[in-house]
Amino acid sequence: MPSPLIALDWGTTRARAFLIGADGAVLDRRSADRGIQSVPEGGFPAAFEAIAGEFRRSHPDAGIVLAGMVGSRNGWVEAPYVACPATPAAIAGAAMPVTLEDGAQALILPGLSCDEGAFDVMRGEETLIVGLGLDDGLVCLPGTHSKWALIESGRIARFASFMTGEVYGLLRQNSILSRLATEPAGDDAIEGARLGFAAAGRAGGLLNAAFAGRTEVLAGRMAPGCVGPYLSALLIGQEIAGATALFGRPVRVQLVADGVMARSYGAALAAAGLPFEITSPEAAFIAGVGLLAGGLAR
Amino acid sequence: MPSPLIALDWGTTRARAFLIGADGAVLDRRSADRGIQSVPEGGFPAAFEAIAGEFRRSHPDAGIVLAGMVGSRNGWVEAPYVACPATPAAIAGAAMPVTLEDGAQALILPGLSCDEGAFDVMRGEETLIVGLGLDDGLVCLPGTHSKWALIESGRIARFASFMTGEVYGLLRQNSILSRLATEPAGDDAIEGARLGFAAAGRAGGLLNAAFAGRTEVLAGRMAPGCVGPYLSALLIGQEIAGATALFGRPVRVQLVADGVMARSYGAALAAAGLPFEITSPEAAFIAGVGLLAGGLAR
Repeated sequence: MPSPLIALDWGTTRARAFLIGADGAVLDRRSADRGIQSVPEGGFPAAFEAIAGEFRRSHPDAGIVLAGMVGSRNGWVEAPYVACPATPAAIAGAAMPVTLEDGAQALILPGLSCDEGAFDVMRGEETLIVGLGLDDGLVCLPGTHSKWALIESGRIARFASFMTGEVYGLLRQNSILSRLATEPAGDDAIEGARLGFAAAGRAGGLLNAAFAGRTEVLAGRMAPGCVGPYLSALLIGQEIAGATALFGRPVRVQLVADGVMARSYGAALAAAGLPFEITSPEAAFIAGVGLLAGGLAR
Repeated sequence: MPSPLIALDWGTTRARAFLIGADGAVLDRRSADRGIQSVPEGGFPAAFEAIAGEFRRSHPDAGIVLAGMVGSRNGWVEAPYVACPATPAAIAGAAMPVTLEDGAQALILPGLSCDEGAFDVMRGEETLIVGLGLDDGLVCLPGTHSKWALIESGRIARFASFMTGEVYGLLRQNSILSRLATEPAGDDAIEGARLGFAAAGRAGGLLNAAFAGRTEVLAGRMAPGCVGPYLSALLIGQEIAGATALFGRPVRVQLVADGVMARSYGAALAAAGLPFEITSPEAAFIAGVGLLAGGLAR
């Protein structure tokens, strides 16, 4: 990366802006509740100014790269998906230019599509995956719609999405399971997770195992505080089983997560007997946007 | 059944009352939005009178049997679960007496519990299962929480619940999939079901396959009207796969359903290569309550 960079991870509900030095170090960061769904038609230049205008003025020569849903149909400009298998160079080469309020140009990174059995898409995660700098490996990016990506010879060969986070929220907050559930206390988190990992392998499948989050409590065999951890572990366990069925069992999983997600997925991978290595989403994003910016025609 | 019978299928949100002749024919029926959740503490005798008082006065000598959630902790009186394997005689023998406004006695049938791997319960479905009069077989009762029950030598050997109906509602109404979905038109129902049955067998599992209900529409490969039928077929397909994993593949599935449920599950069973026979829930209830009333100590 020859010069400083202003990089935004601009999603549906939030925007994270980074000022990155020529050496790759984060010089400053901003986070704002200005996700693309809050930006009115034609309002992106002003929204960018509100989020990162300060970085722009302090570093007028910095390149500007935007990743995430800002490149979707409902974003600033639609950056068409690059089809897998995809190299970092192909991703960088498909970036779309937009013009800021002051006339300067920014580049919006495209997402990826994959057509293996079912069509699938990602926006934003491709930058984090590139940031891992892998030649070969299997990457797990937990979230509302978790992504697993297989890297082969430096290319993102294929990937798949799992509705794990969203289904967890629906079951935990809006289903019959939420009536008996309470916040975990004491050893509930550990015990609920243990029960959930075991249930993930049960023959009846997810629709059957989820119901045990009610009946085991009714039977007095599961504490109400275990229901959330049970569901989480059950769903993550099913996600891991599905991903390894699709991509094979890797030597090591590259887990891009921090905080609660890193702990939950780490425990689930350990329970599944899969070694893993953790990278924080911010570190992966900073490295990825640096690598991709190096390949951008600015 | 030696005398007429007044039988109520009294659930959480609705009550269905039947006046059944000594020959087993339905002489009259009532349906009321007086599920147990609408009945105040101590209000069950009055609620019964409002629902079935007319039957009581026209047939004062009729026996009275109540089935369903009316026997739960939040019902009239708690009729403890009978543990599987359970014979019809054991179910009848565990009925709990309650006293009506006029001093007459009614009997509340118990539900069943099953403890095979996970604890599971049913209330109301046991009566329909008994009504099928099976010596051996596998019964499917679709619903918000579908039940599958294995019958061996005239006993309900074991059963399992699946959150199929509830998860369908959550995904169809409250998830990201609902944003693109429209009501089926033209061939959408058939096409969506075809895609859903195929997806139910995919290696990535339910959390992965459900997401295709969004991405396939985004890719222009699935009509928005197919999303609901796709999800329904995907979930029912997963339920059938789970049930046959738990109970084995039967010669024939006894499907207790009518209307849309009978059509959806019939199509899913056919897609899975499983022959089936349909009985309506009302017919199964009438037959079941008649058989159980014959075994009641009145």
